[in-house]
Amino acid sequence: MSRNAANRLVSALFRANQQGLSASWSVGGTRLKSAMPQPTDAKDDDLHHKDGKVLHPHLINENVLKTQYAVRGELYLRAEQLRKEGKDIIFTNVGNPHALGAKPMTFPRQVLALCAAPFLLDHPRVSEMFPPDAIARAKKILAAFKGGVGAYTDSRGNPLVREEVAKFIEQRDGVPSNPDHIFLTDGASVSVRLCLNAMIRHERDSILVPIPQYPLYSASIRLYGGSLVGYYLDEKAGWGLSAEELRRSLKEARDEGKLVRGLVFINPGNPTGQCLSRDNLAELIKFCYEERIVLMADEVYQENVYQDERPFVSAKKVLWEMGEPYRSQVELLSFHTVSKGTAGECGLRGGYVEMTNIHPGAIEEVYKCASINLSPNTMGQIALSCLVNPPKKGDPSYEQFVAEKAAELASLRRRAHMVTDGFNALQGVTCNFTEGAMYAFPQIRLPPKALEAAKAAGKAGDVFYCLKLLEATGISTVPGSGFGQEEDTFHLRTTILPREEVMTHFVEAFDKFHKDFMKQYS
Amino acid sequence: MSRNAANRLVSALFRANQQGLSASWSVGGTRLKSAMPQPTDAKDDDLHHKDGKVLHPHLINENVLKTQYAVRGELYLRAEQLRKEGKDIIFTNVGNPHALGAKPMTFPRQVLALCAAPFLLDHPRVSEMFPPDAIARAKKILAAFKGGVGAYTDSRGNPLVREEVAKFIEQRDGVPSNPDHIFLTDGASVSVRLCLNAMIRHERDSILVPIPQYPLYSASIRLYGGSLVGYYLDEKAGWGLSAEELRRSLKEARDEGKLVRGLVFINPGNPTGQCLSRDNLAELIKFCYEERIVLMADEVYQENVYQDERPFVSAKKVLWEMGEPYRSQVELLSFHTVSKGTAGECGLRGGYVEMTNIHPGAIEEVYKCASINLSPNTMGQIALSCLVNPPKKGDPSYEQFVAEKAAELASLRRRAHMVTDGFNALQGVTCNFTEGAMYAFPQIRLPPKALEAAKAAGKAGDVFYCLKLLEATGISTVPGSGFGQEEDTFHLRTTILPREEVMTHFVEAFDKFHKDFMKQYS
Repeated sequence: MSRNAANRLVSALFRANQQGLSASWSVGGTRLKSAMPQPTDAKDDDLHHKDGKVLHPHLINENVLKTQYAVRGELYLRAEQLRKEGKDIIFTNVGNPHALGAKPMTFPRQVLALCAAPFLLDHPRVSEMFPPDAIARAKKILAAFKGGVGAYTDSRGNPLVREEVAKFIEQRDGVPSNPDHIFLTDGASVSVRLCLNAMIRHERDSILVPIPQYPLYSASIRLYGGSLVGYYLDEKAGWGLSAEELRRSLKEARDEGKLVRGLVFINPGNPTGQCLSRDNLAELIKFCYEERIVLMADEVYQENVYQDERPFVSAKKVLWEMGEPYRSQVELLSFHTVSKGTAGECGLRGGYVEMTNIHPGAIEEVYKCASINLSPNTMGQIALSCLVNPPKKGDPSYEQFVAEKAAELASLRRRAHMVTDGFNALQGVTCNFTEGAMYAFPQIRLPPKALEAAKAAGKAGDVFYCLKLLEATGISTVPGSGFGQEEDTFHLRTTILPREEVMTHFVEAFDKFHKDFMKQYS
Repeated sequence: MSRNAANRLVSALFRANQQGLSASWSVGGTRLKSAMPQPTDAKDDDLHHKDGKVLHPHLINENVLKTQYAVRGELYLRAEQLRKEGKDIIFTNVGNPHALGAKPMTFPRQVLALCAAPFLLDHPRVSEMFPPDAIARAKKILAAFKGGVGAYTDSRGNPLVREEVAKFIEQRDGVPSNPDHIFLTDGASVSVRLCLNAMIRHERDSILVPIPQYPLYSASIRLYGGSLVGYYLDEKAGWGLSAEELRRSLKEARDEGKLVRGLVFINPGNPTGQCLSRDNLAELIKFCYEERIVLMADEVYQENVYQDERPFVSAKKVLWEMGEPYRSQVELLSFHTVSKGTAGECGLRGGYVEMTNIHPGAIEEVYKCASINLSPNTMGQIALSCLVNPPKKGDPSYEQFVAEKAAELASLRRRAHMVTDGFNALQGVTCNFTEGAMYAFPQIRLPPKALEAAKAAGKAGDVFYCLKLLEATGISTVPGSGFGQEEDTFHLRTTILPREEVMTHFVEAFDKFHKDFMKQYS
């Protein structure tokens, strides 16, 4: 099938999905089973179902019903079930490093502990348990958080932390940053959703999203009633991004009457692991300038880079360096988090959006929406403070902090090689190297007999494969259909996060399973 | 004006508000100034504004634009500005106890600190700084949170904490509770919003909300594109709730073609402070059963009760005790939080919803939506664990825990009297006693000259009064229009949270301001 034909097909499947039809691009692996009511069963003005229920799944907000979320979908639920039954599960379905044994960085956790229990600061033994710079930092934070961690902050987050984020950006990029254009949220997901909710007015409002994509985007766009327009990353070119493909996708969307308002890119890529070059970023910026599209830069993996040719460069920096008219014209939303990088503090829920060249009235609208939840959580804000303002050279905690960071990053790099080498050694499997982020996204060529067995089981090929893998090995992955993939190709996403001491087992178990699977179905 | 006429007028104002007209019930004090674009300025298929911006406030999701949120509205923004200019501000606009000097309870904070820095557990000095039950609890929690506080939990929250919540409900009510029907969220607001988002399909879908109400409800219902239908609390009867008024409101809504799907009540009341009797609750339950409406029980102030005649009773308990058909038929959503009560842990963002008699398919839909954000924050979950499972008699921390709780509750009761007595001593001001929750909601009878001055300043009367109060005294309140009030009446909401040592100053400053104000405008 030609690329264009494939694209058209996947676009059609996206549309079908949005119309609630079952022939969806993510059929099978990505939807909670009982979330499949037929819309024909209920009318718009039904007050309750014939069984008596008002809050009946057939009478729920259609956008909610049609939303799909793969990372915690069928595979995850089955894995949870097996875990409850006593099976050892390796959860590689989500980038959750601490759950697989990553240790927290010491300094931020010392600061968090002191902020949680400020009475410790008055204890005579405090200096035996905490280094002086952690104590000093906790005092500084507590002075800036009126009422401590138990008080709501401003709905945009505490002003001190927003200033620290702005300084971090200025030092990273050599570009000015305004704390009033930075909002702290409960993880970067909330930032992304606040922005999408403001941008999407109706079904024709569309967001360009890379395929494969991170399902936060497909789920949120669907939930807010908009349309996702996919642009393909080229697997054969290391999941590269091309201006030609962007234009094709945009044209097709416009021909269909869609209003393309935003463009998402993920750098380093999730699930695809590629790192974008400065030229790539300049191309994206030029495209958004010419076509008047808001650029959404998902840069949550900026610390996670495992090659040296293309170090991370932010869209903000490239935008600035391109000069006018781009510098003051292109509307840019940049996202970052404490959940990824070497901190990996997923559970604390800290993240931010920086809004560049965004209309002040639009920023106030986002502020208003953020204020409905009153305040992002304070501990996530403090973790973010430690991320963007870590111990400096000469500080008592500096050496340990740098050593912890370097060790984790070096280990992640080794694991990126172990996982992708492992996949590439398997018959019928190819996998681009994980240049960055936390995932590998191998392509699995399934034999016809496997596809028949999948069909007989009512599953998509990749879902079938991932379920078999889970049952045989306890390895919990996400089928490629959850992220989008070209027709007739099958992928899965795994993280590279099992610890090195487990990784050998992981690779071996995968290898044995795959060989058995291929033997059974060839 | 008769009650019915007033009701009709306020209903009309609600409708006008929903159509984006400026003659809204909450005009003036509740909306960010620049969030007032005229919809006529932009078309639905405009891609960008003539100034070039895509994310322009005239081209934003209409539901976002029309959403209003009073607690952090004009008054709050002005107070923030004055604070930046160096003025001392007493923030009584929001129930944020720690910001006004309430101290955190010791035991939960010890547990939080140990969970944040688990390496402290291995330190030889740990038992000098932490009591053994806090250490034991932290170990138990860390064993249950695989990967510690840095890992995502299940999107419904950690199973151990959900079990603890279920046990808490069982002990409180003598009624079974199922942990699988309990979802933990980043504060109770997120729980409320998840449920409303699922319930509201389109503009005709309506939620019955008490007037005065807490603006979380008006804001969220608007954001999700539904309609708010107000039912009046009777100020003359201590903000009492009547079945007759509920039926009037429902009938009027149905006559207009609205589909009433949910009914919110807040017990103890916010902003009104009344505590509902068991009979009141039975009436609500009966009403929801007969009319097939989901009952939404906002019970976040259940600890905050300052009278002895009507101790807190949960809707769940009454529902159970009423027996069949109610017990197994009425769909009930109950909300609770760590932000209120004597803990007052607003900044940690911990809350839950318990879903009773809700269709399993609907619960899964809510689960799916919760999973888009992956996980509620872990520290809020741990704070919730300490709230629902506090130290027991005989535990080393028990005496201190109970003493801290009792002292704060007794102080709140004294402050409830001080504030409402203070208001009732003022000419032209009446205020029902704050039986529960954290607020006083006095009615201010404004003299005609004050109303003329307000009109000349382009402000509603209550907004005008609150702004003058803020400028003169630094006391930051919320005008009654942010909560809804009968036509031609003016109220404000203040918290009872200033500490007792500040309270005398607070009452005196208010008294002086009010006398000056009345002198100036009479």
